Amino acid sequence: MISDLHIAPAKDSKLQTVLQHAIDHKTKPPGSLGRLELLAAQIGQIQQTASPVLRDPAIIVFAGDHGVVAEGISAFPQDVTWQMVENFLAGGAAINVFARQNGIALHIVDSGVRHEFGQRDGLTDRKVAPGTQNFAKQAAMSPVQCAEAIRHGRELVRGLSGNVLGFGEMGIGNTTAAAAVMHKLTGIPVADCVGAGTGLSPQGIRHKQQVIEAAVALHAGVTAPQEVLACFGGLEIAMMTGAMLEAAQRRMVLLIDGFIVSSALLVAARLQPAILDYCVFSHQSDESGHARMLDALQVSPVLKLDLRLGEGTGAALVYPMVQAAVNFLNQMATFGDARVSEKTAD
Amino acid sequence: MISDLHIAPAKDSKLQTVLQHAIDHKTKPPGSLGRLELLAAQIGQIQQTASPVLRDPAIIVFAGDHGVVAEGISAFPQDVTWQMVENFLAGGAAINVFARQNGIALHIVDSGVRHEFGQRDGLTDRKVAPGTQNFAKQAAMSPVQCAEAIRHGRELVRGLSGNVLGFGEMGIGNTTAAAAVMHKLTGIPVADCVGAGTGLSPQGIRHKQQVIEAAVALHAGVTAPQEVLACFGGLEIAMMTGAMLEAAQRRMVLLIDGFIVSSALLVAARLQPAILDYCVFSHQSDESGHARMLDALQVSPVLKLDLRLGEGTGAALVYPMVQAAVNFLNQMATFGDARVSEKTAD
Repeated sequence: MISDLHIAPAKDSKLQTVLQHAIDHKTKPPGSLGRLELLAAQIGQIQQTASPVLRDPAIIVFAGDHGVVAEGISAFPQDVTWQMVENFLAGGAAINVFARQNGIALHIVDSGVRHEFGQRDGLTDRKVAPGTQNFAKQAAMSPVQCAEAIRHGRELVRGLSGNVLGFGEMGIGNTTAAAAVMHKLTGIPVADCVGAGTGLSPQGIRHKQQVIEAAVALHAGVTAPQEVLACFGGLEIAMMTGAMLEAAQRRMVLLIDGFIVSSALLVAARLQPAILDYCVFSHQSDESGHARMLDALQVSPVLKLDLRLGEGTGAALVYPMVQAAVNFLNQMATFGDARVSEKTAD
Repeated sequence: MISDLHIAPAKDSKLQTVLQHAIDHKTKPPGSLGRLELLAAQIGQIQQTASPVLRDPAIIVFAGDHGVVAEGISAFPQDVTWQMVENFLAGGAAINVFARQNGIALHIVDSGVRHEFGQRDGLTDRKVAPGTQNFAKQAAMSPVQCAEAIRHGRELVRGLSGNVLGFGEMGIGNTTAAAAVMHKLTGIPVADCVGAGTGLSPQGIRHKQQVIEAAVALHAGVTAPQEVLACFGGLEIAMMTGAMLEAAQRRMVLLIDGFIVSSALLVAARLQPAILDYCVFSHQSDESGHARMLDALQVSPVLKLDLRLGEGTGAALVYPMVQAAVNFLNQMATFGDARVSEKTAD
């Protein structure tokens, strides 16, 4: 259920004046910390204070499988989803390395992997089903499954102690699901939503596009955001949407990763537009649809490192920039404190 | 003296094969860590190993004053140079905050500030002169002063224990000096080299351009890199040039900050082109000439955060990305280790 949700805008004009005054009186030319100044003000707004504090940052990686892989839309076999979950549990994946480096707690969630892990240390079992159905033939999820995934996402967030949450995912086939969701919710042509994913050839990308176009024609009547999510999405995507909604309602800072995470956010933003006030768009992915998706959301990414890995790696990498924004706001001297002369007219 | 210097290229083709193999067998789609993969290979090349280690990172902030401020080319008064040095010593500037956050040792050097600090904890006195001469009237430095500044820069680097060195600067008027150096060494029109610095109005920028154009006409015969540095540069810029040359010769990783630091590097690169192999271009500054300068050097920046503060802030902020590159190379599992299936043909 999401009918109880209400995400308030994080844009208080009085607080903005206070924040801007604090930022402008730090010992630096006005505006010279660029994007970090915008981040500092945003985080102040999220936390409703001119002295924000980042506490117990975490990243949740949501893993799920996709029935649509039966159509041959991925460069990697489906087993890679569970194999990579094992890699996360063993600490050997990129997200383990970057989360460790930046002091971010990492949570791995089985949202719907087609594999029996059994009870495992470090793995949270929220499996709704062993993968989705093939949306080239039928809806990926039933409405009940989709609602259950959203509910699990919300519950997971209620168990966290911190106020910064990054989102990551693992699921062979999920750029296909994300591209279909993007097309349906933005109207951008399918050709501009699809990309190479984990490494398709140009021919493979054309096939992926055709699979999505045929599926869109099959499910032509589906339009409402949560229906689109159920029909084309993934269990990990739906669970992220739920987690994002809950995190924003709790006024957490949301670190949005790449293409697939942004597709989950797109659904959330169609349901609760004010969620965007809580989001830091970590990076622009090299997956070709991501730039267009960020444009559609009217947001701009902090980093542009040609990443296309997922797992929440962009969210982990942007965290030091978020820290830098909060730290300069809290720790830098003002012109008055430091007795530094201010700007003169030229 | 720099005649004893020889910077060897850091581009060994056998090692590149080893590094690329290591990078490509990590558990991720090939190329999916984008810019971080290029950084990992570069640092491996600099350290001549497939298992690079970052040790005792440091940033040196070089401070100096500029005689050309007499022409009214800055939005801030000249006293801000020494006042900001005091702010660095008290720990209240942006560079203090970011260096502290990222575990980087900070060294503050008086290269040529127009102020008597006396003996002070945390301040290294390498003052060649209390500021340069006004290059609108005469050369900024004598050849002897310029050589002395370069020598001091080299000596400072010999005293460091680490293998990563970031460069920062403070000096009211130094975007004017940097723009003149850039114009002379690249041939790019002065109008495309000048920008707002700490915050000039459009009228102030036009005046700054005219001051530089007149000075370029006055010193028309000056063309060799070190002569250009002496005629138009600053004591902090010359000292950075010397420090950069020494650091690259010692195979350190050089973290290049914004517009002014890049102008020092431009001089170094004209003297020893292989120095570029050792440089990480931290960010593209919002100072308008910086994008053109990076193009002239045929390099691309890691970050683009609309910063225009200097002090080495971009170098401090990029360091977590450099760490991430080295960490993924050293710590991520390979497909073989983790028993993850590799890519299939599509």
